[in-house]
Amino acid sequence: MKLATYKNNTRDGKLMLVNRDLTKAIEVADVAATMQQALDNWREIEPVLKARYDSLNNDSANAENFDEALCESPLPRAYQWADGSAYVNHVELVRKARGAEIPASFWTDPLMYQGGSDDFIGPRDDVKLPSDEWGIDFEGEVAVITDDVPMGVAPESAGQHIKLLMLVNDVSLRGLIPGELAKGFGFFQSKPSSVFSPVAVTPDELTTAWSGNKVHLPLVSHYNGALFGKPEAGEDMTFDFAQLVAHAAKSRNLGAGAIIGSGTVSNKQGTDHGSSIAEGGVGYSCIAEVRMIETIRDGKPSTPFMAFEDSIRIEMFDREGQSIFGAIDQVIKKSAV
Amino acid sequence: MKLATYKNNTRDGKLMLVNRDLTKAIEVADVAATMQQALDNWREIEPVLKARYDSLNNDSANAENFDEALCESPLPRAYQWADGSAYVNHVELVRKARGAEIPASFWTDPLMYQGGSDDFIGPRDDVKLPSDEWGIDFEGEVAVITDDVPMGVAPESAGQHIKLLMLVNDVSLRGLIPGELAKGFGFFQSKPSSVFSPVAVTPDELTTAWSGNKVHLPLVSHYNGALFGKPEAGEDMTFDFAQLVAHAAKSRNLGAGAIIGSGTVSNKQGTDHGSSIAEGGVGYSCIAEVRMIETIRDGKPSTPFMAFEDSIRIEMFDREGQSIFGAIDQVIKKSAV
Repeated sequence: MKLATYKNNTRDGKLMLVNRDLTKAIEVADVAATMQQALDNWREIEPVLKARYDSLNNDSANAENFDEALCESPLPRAYQWADGSAYVNHVELVRKARGAEIPASFWTDPLMYQGGSDDFIGPRDDVKLPSDEWGIDFEGEVAVITDDVPMGVAPESAGQHIKLLMLVNDVSLRGLIPGELAKGFGFFQSKPSSVFSPVAVTPDELTTAWSGNKVHLPLVSHYNGALFGKPEAGEDMTFDFAQLVAHAAKSRNLGAGAIIGSGTVSNKQGTDHGSSIAEGGVGYSCIAEVRMIETIRDGKPSTPFMAFEDSIRIEMFDREGQSIFGAIDQVIKKSAV
Repeated sequence: MKLATYKNNTRDGKLMLVNRDLTKAIEVADVAATMQQALDNWREIEPVLKARYDSLNNDSANAENFDEALCESPLPRAYQWADGSAYVNHVELVRKARGAEIPASFWTDPLMYQGGSDDFIGPRDDVKLPSDEWGIDFEGEVAVITDDVPMGVAPESAGQHIKLLMLVNDVSLRGLIPGELAKGFGFFQSKPSSVFSPVAVTPDELTTAWSGNKVHLPLVSHYNGALFGKPEAGEDMTFDFAQLVAHAAKSRNLGAGAIIGSGTVSNKQGTDHGSSIAEGGVGYSCIAEVRMIETIRDGKPSTPFMAFEDSIRIEMFDREGQSIFGAIDQVIKKSAV
């Protein structure tokens, strides 16, 4: 099943059911007005939506054309957004570039930061920021949305709470990170509003590409129109989504609609740290990794971070080349302030 | 104006208008069903609620008795919960106990952590946790709720976005903090669900005690029935709430209903680090500070953290002795898991 949220001049938008090939959509206000409302009552609502979805795929005569440009993030605002860092290669690279090894525990205990969730950016909306001297970067990721998860859930049973999947652009301000992390309280200003793909899908939509609580497909990023990365999201993911959900729920319940992210998708490709598209590799899902490689190789980075008017497109295709989630496709703009 | 949220077997409860002396309450479902709904439309709804509030204070014949035990936290779940650490004395103590000085920047650049907001605990509900070997502590704080705050708001104009005030128990798991902060991503498992006072009030309810975007009244904590602290929330608050809101909004918009906390209220009292109630001082708003004093004085802490069945009560009175927010009053219990 595929779901989206259309803009309608309300804070939570309106829930839309989208057909499998992302060409048609129908309103489902009589079932659930918003995505959060559907998630709040998922057990009752999911079968009703599923029946409509099957009908829509069989006969879309009464449906409107689906337009990704009309979409909010599937949850325009959420009660929980926690982002893991499950591709430890990414973490290792960042550390290596400053001459540090990662602690052994990083391979067994997930890194996760608490994100802010009150003001997500739409997948086709501009990312507005006051300065492009803050080291603006994209981070291409996969995320899950859960139902209610009880505190202390075991990793073995956490997977059953995963109800929807999305892609993420976890916008990061690299220039603000060192100072902020040095203060000891983690990210805040360095992690501005995040962006999610136009469409959220149930795991069964991925058929065999969803296994072991991982998505086994490449995450494709184009930076200013050029292919930048296509790493396999199922490879080098040290912690699967069930482990990430369990980590998030160790000392708290997670409310329905909680979003848990994978962290930047990153592959080692049998090398020390992976390689770029230009080098014949699968590339990367953020600029920071390229800069780390450059720092390790040349002593300093040469690829700049994003400037105003730069664009980033993040999407994922099934093995037949069909877009699964629609595309995050947006431009960095100077905010009016 | 005073507002509360009664439990009604829904996720967001039902909004109640409470009279000034916290004895009577009325439903206002025809104006706004939930606290978030009121905050989403505050400009239109606030005057309507205010008129009802004035009537309720003049004639409560048709009102029911107000019962704090029926309350959820005013926002049972929220889209944003960011907690500052504005009483730098608290931070200085923690550092001094481990032999470290605080960086000079801590006096000019607020510390703030991103909290999780999907599952707040009711003010009279048990705090359920699987283990009391995690160093369970309370943290008594004041918090504000904002309307929509634009990114980059100046501290000089951020105060106008403060619409409601509450008290907080920012439950902390001290035993999990060192390991978690060492990972570099800030608090997550070490900050379980937080708790807010039964009643949220508009700043004008504090009359002259609200000035300079600070609350100039003592925050009173009783631990297992004994007075533990009564520090003045308006003293030693290095950053006022307008500065904290501006800090939170540096690189993001804050959505209506965003909660921004003060951090643990802590007074220096003209001494190095304050003194306890037993010593004739104003005491503290968390156990950790007492342990820091003990560590500085004796080389090690002697006061244990909270055990299952321990209770904490946090409240604030006006200069006439009237409770303003009702009381957070709860017991630590072992969770069923």
